Amino acid sequence: MHKGRLEAFSDGVLAIIITIMVLELHAPKEATWAGLREVWPTLVSYVLSFIYIGIYWTNHHHLFQAARHVSGGTLWANLHVLFWLSLIPFVTNWVDESHFAALPMAAYGAVLLLAAVAYWILVRTLVRHHGRDSALARAIGIDAKGTVSAVLYAAAIPLAFVRPWIAGAIY
Amino acid sequence: MHKGRLEAFSDGVLAIIITIMVLELHAPKEATWAGLREVWPTLVSYVLSFIYIGIYWTNHHHLFQAARHVSGGTLWANLHVLFWLSLIPFVTNWVDESHFAALPMAAYGAVLLLAAVAYWILVRTLVRHHGRDSALARAIGIDAKGTVSAVLYAAAIPLAFVRPWIAGAIY
Amino acid sequence: MHKGRLEAFSDGVLAIIITIMVLELHAPKEATWAGLREVWPTLVSYVLSFIYIGIYWTNHHHLFQAARHVSGGTLWANLHVLFWLSLIPFVTNWVDESHFAALPMAAYGAVLLLAAVAYWILVRTLVRHHGRDSALARAIGIDAKGTVSAVLYAAAIPLAFVRPWIAGAIY
Amino acid sequence: MHKGRLEAFSDGVLAIIITIMVLELHAPKEATWAGLREVWPTLVSYVLSFIYIGIYWTNHHHLFQAARHVSGGTLWANLHVLFWLSLIPFVTNWVDESHFAALPMAAYGAVLLLAAVAYWILVRTLVRHHGRDSALARAIGIDAKGTVSAVLYAAAIPLAFVRPWIAGAIY
Repeated sequence: MHKGRLEAFSDGVLAIIITIMVLELHAPKEATWAGLREVWPTLVSYVLSFIYIGIYWTNHHHLFQAARHVSGGTLWANLHVLFWLSLIPFVTNWVDESHFAALPMAAYGAVLLLAAVAYWILVRTLVRHHGRDSALARAIGIDAKGTVSAVLYAAAIPLAFVRPWIAGAIY
Repeated sequence: MHKGRLEAFSDGVLAIIITIMVLELHAPKEATWAGLREVWPTLVSYVLSFIYIGIYWTNHHHLFQAARHVSGGTLWANLHVLFWLSLIPFVTNWVDESHFAALPMAAYGAVLLLAAVAYWILVRTLVRHHGRDSALARAIGIDAKGTVSAVLYAAAIPLAFVRPWIAGAIY
Repeated sequence: MHKGRLEAFSDGVLAIIITIMVLELHAPKEATWAGLREVWPTLVSYVLSFIYIGIYWTNHHHLFQAARHVSGGTLWANLHVLFWLSLIPFVTNWVDESHFAALPMAAYGAVLLLAAVAYWILVRTLVRHHGRDSALARAIGIDAKGTVSAVLYAAAIPLAFVRPWIAGAIY
Repeated sequence: MHKGRLEAFSDGVLAIIITIMVLELHAPKEATWAGLREVWPTLVSYVLSFIYIGIYWTNHHHLFQAARHVSGGTLWANLHVLFWLSLIPFVTNWVDESHFAALPMAAYGAVLLLAAVAYWILVRTLVRHHGRDSALARAIGIDAKGTVSAVLYAAAIPLAFVRPWIAGAIY
């Protein structure tokens, strides 16, 4: 099957996820610096989540640039990735409203980890579909540093954040 | 007419429907397991609805992969499918807030059934447009097991859910 | 310039407008027929607005199917159409909450009329860009019955609705 | 890399940003001219923001019409532009709710300025990727009047607005 619609649908879902969080950015009640300071944590977590979705989109872009065709399994592996990414606004919001409490932070980390796992499954599905000797497999082999490190990065950063903050929250 | 825009528009609408429900996922009030347990039903119905929209998207993808061109009637048959699917977030939300009461459950089932009927009409419209001897008609004939069973499946699952729950709600 | 992005952007905006109104479909407070009856007007106006946007999308689809290329002016004429259509959820909502009062009904009619005018300007811009002897101009000439009647239809229906209702509201 | 997905993703994000602000257009509480007058500032700022996003979309359209291919850096430069544009609904809303107070007006101007800077970086990234002797560089050189003036325009207008209003607010 052609890869065009999988790309278009993913672009649509990611575009919505990346912008939907703006709806949670309620205008500060006061038109003062104090008012802006109040919404500051929300802004920071918006920026962070924007970067995460951005990383996934660029990786997804690179991956499917190398793909020639997709299978029915690829469609579902891709939907699986989109599902976990779609929960990012939800956990972002929870972390925010709970002022970085332990459980929401852990939930944020878990969603990012599951998104990374789902992405890894998607990559495996594509490689299996194209064959181990395909240009895609080779491109991923070469690009593996990029893709894998980005995935690990995406999983590592939140964990790095989570641990001290969980610790901090426990104390 | 080319099929490109029908696909692009459907991708857009389905991408929005599948992610719009995240907006209903309000962050739990407490940062505890009890808080998470409270939003649990919402999460479960989000997952279910995500899967339903996912099934429709993949079926739509397979169907139009086989189509060569579309008619004016196809555009409207397609909009008809999108209409019923667009009500899924609404009934999902109602089921949720009513804690799985009888009428909302029935409404959920009705919307899914009508979406399945609309999808069946779309398939018929496409087959009529391509001719009974076309590659599409043959592909659908062969793929009928897949498509039809998926449609039946999409209609059957909620009914299976609905009956016991309606029963449960009546008792 | 290629017409691809104008089509893609319009599809995106129309897909959002057509589904955004679902967000206004709040779940009925009660899980009874009375509860459903309460949200009935909202559902009816959702269906009407869905049909309007659907008419515009299919007309837009037919129009650009015939177009070969676009100019800078076409981009803005198109944005102008999208602007008026984007106000439909707003006026729909107002009509709804005011229980079909006179002014909101008139505003609804005005937005639909201005959208029809903007669409007519878009058609003129495209014809001027392609030349009066182009295939597009001929296609529109032939299709004029379809396009023009649809536009008139889109403008006439609400006015038909508006007049009796305004009258009704005045009495 | 092909430029298709960058265009599609940008179209998606811009389509959402341009329509998301409609969600902030709450229906007036009263069905009278007084009710409409109350939401008037919101309508005006919606129109202004719609025009800004429209300017960016048409410029983006012209720019990538001339581009042949994109690099990894282009993807991020583009995401950077989209980030600042995604904050427009937020600052629009703040300006609105604060009745055009000084700080929100300054924030609005700052977001528009940073968006213009990000756009300028995107143009530089593309020119560097295509080479100074490429058709793109020449097209931008020629189109520079258009692009640059549009960018300056986009930055200048709000500043023009901001200064008197900040002054007004200070007095």
